[in-house]
Amino acid sequence: MKEKEKVRVFKIGGKVIDNESLLEQFLIDFSSVPGKKVLIHGGGKIATAISEKLGIKAVMVDGRRVTDKDTLEVVLMVYGGLINKKIVARLQSLGINAMGLSGADLNIVQAHKRPVKTVDYGFVGDVDGVNNKGLSFLLDNDILPVLAPLSHDGQGQMLNTNADTIAAVAAIGLSASYEVELFFCFEKKGVLQDQNNEDSVIQEISFSDFDQLKSSGVVSEGMLPKLENSFDCIRKGVGKVIICHFSTIKEIDAAHFPGTLLHG
Amino acid sequence: MKEKEKVRVFKIGGKVIDNESLLEQFLIDFSSVPGKKVLIHGGGKIATAISEKLGIKAVMVDGRRVTDKDTLEVVLMVYGGLINKKIVARLQSLGINAMGLSGADLNIVQAHKRPVKTVDYGFVGDVDGVNNKGLSFLLDNDILPVLAPLSHDGQGQMLNTNADTIAAVAAIGLSASYEVELFFCFEKKGVLQDQNNEDSVIQEISFSDFDQLKSSGVVSEGMLPKLENSFDCIRKGVGKVIICHFSTIKEIDAAHFPGTLLHG
Repeated sequence: MKEKEKVRVFKIGGKVIDNESLLEQFLIDFSSVPGKKVLIHGGGKIATAISEKLGIKAVMVDGRRVTDKDTLEVVLMVYGGLINKKIVARLQSLGINAMGLSGADLNIVQAHKRPVKTVDYGFVGDVDGVNNKGLSFLLDNDILPVLAPLSHDGQGQMLNTNADTIAAVAAIGLSASYEVELFFCFEKKGVLQDQNNEDSVIQEISFSDFDQLKSSGVVSEGMLPKLENSFDCIRKGVGKVIICHFSTIKEIDAAHFPGTLLHG
Repeated sequence: MKEKEKVRVFKIGGKVIDNESLLEQFLIDFSSVPGKKVLIHGGGKIATAISEKLGIKAVMVDGRRVTDKDTLEVVLMVYGGLINKKIVARLQSLGINAMGLSGADLNIVQAHKRPVKTVDYGFVGDVDGVNNKGLSFLLDNDILPVLAPLSHDGQGQMLNTNADTIAAVAAIGLSASYEVELFFCFEKKGVLQDQNNEDSVIQEISFSDFDQLKSSGVVSEGMLPKLENSFDCIRKGVGKVIICHFSTIKEIDAAHFPGTLLHG
């Protein structure tokens, strides 16, 4: 059987998006990563800042943005326009043939509006599927997809979707055709053994380790959904998930990559 | 010699962008136009409205937007995000595999920052070239490019560029490989003989007619740059330019298309 080609999927969010010089350095490092790759970005703080300037109050429930009609317009503007186009322009200047996409472009991420249960999240999309053929078509033509955290419902409605979720579904989708490594890049060096010690990075976590970490209460509350999401990816075909600091991806081919490796 | 395949390039702006139900109807009509096509949109009034809400004063010189750093962020948001993604989502719902692009995506429109002469237009791009190969690649894969009026300088800087200009350079670029028809769709039924009579549409204008119209003063001041731009396209290889009302494109294959046809 022919070995699958590798695709690396990177998700960035938080400080690296909010701070222009950190983003600049990340994109330089990112452009040096060899092989096929996909970039997914968030942009929550900028969306909140623009919302406030426009007099729209940002409402969060369990860390998720409630997206009314006005807020949807803000995230379309900030994620789909402002952040996405700045990243694409910078990557083009670094010699990368980048192409920005929302979930509607090429029908890349289809979703449905989240049903109202106890909370009405508004125009938030729960993902139904990813257009793997579309993503592969871009990758196989040496185009680097830069995905904004936006989906659509196929009936003309754009929807707001969490960037971690978009990264996960894209990674799972691509794993049908490629050997996929998914990198969640953020402010910390990885999953920490001790929340008060930034250097207490756990190097590897397997399924069984994860069960132990959960029962022993080592994993912080904020990290738990990220890990659940990551192990779900591994269960669904993603080869490896790496949780790492955004400044470390230049060391991507080092023998000991400085982050937390999750595997089956 | 093999006959060139036809591509129709449509530019929309003004009322059809500002009014959701007019845009909806336009996109339905547009989706029924057969064959390969490209859509270019403006969005000036919405950008002005968002600018005002954000406390940024819109400054226009000779009908062109002066684009300072804050205004650039607004046009990236409004053109690249809000309007572009709404159009793409609607077209996808109509069965069209649309793909939204700024000039940076796939390096589609390269430009340089306009040199300061008497007026400093700020982050406005004068177009250097269009990536014909990129556009053809999309068209030949049954993807419909939806271009926002944004360019980039290849060094990481996004720039604001007039939508009529983007439409013209895209049409000229594509005419190397295709038989191109360029449609400027707007509020009037075409070029008017009498500015006070909406029905006094001039059916055809040739180069020599245009010289006559200019010297006789029939053409209005606002129409003059549009016509100069259009005849420049014809000089550079575009087969036909049509100036028409946005509601008429459903009649595109009618024997007498109700607009003004410009030709060599």
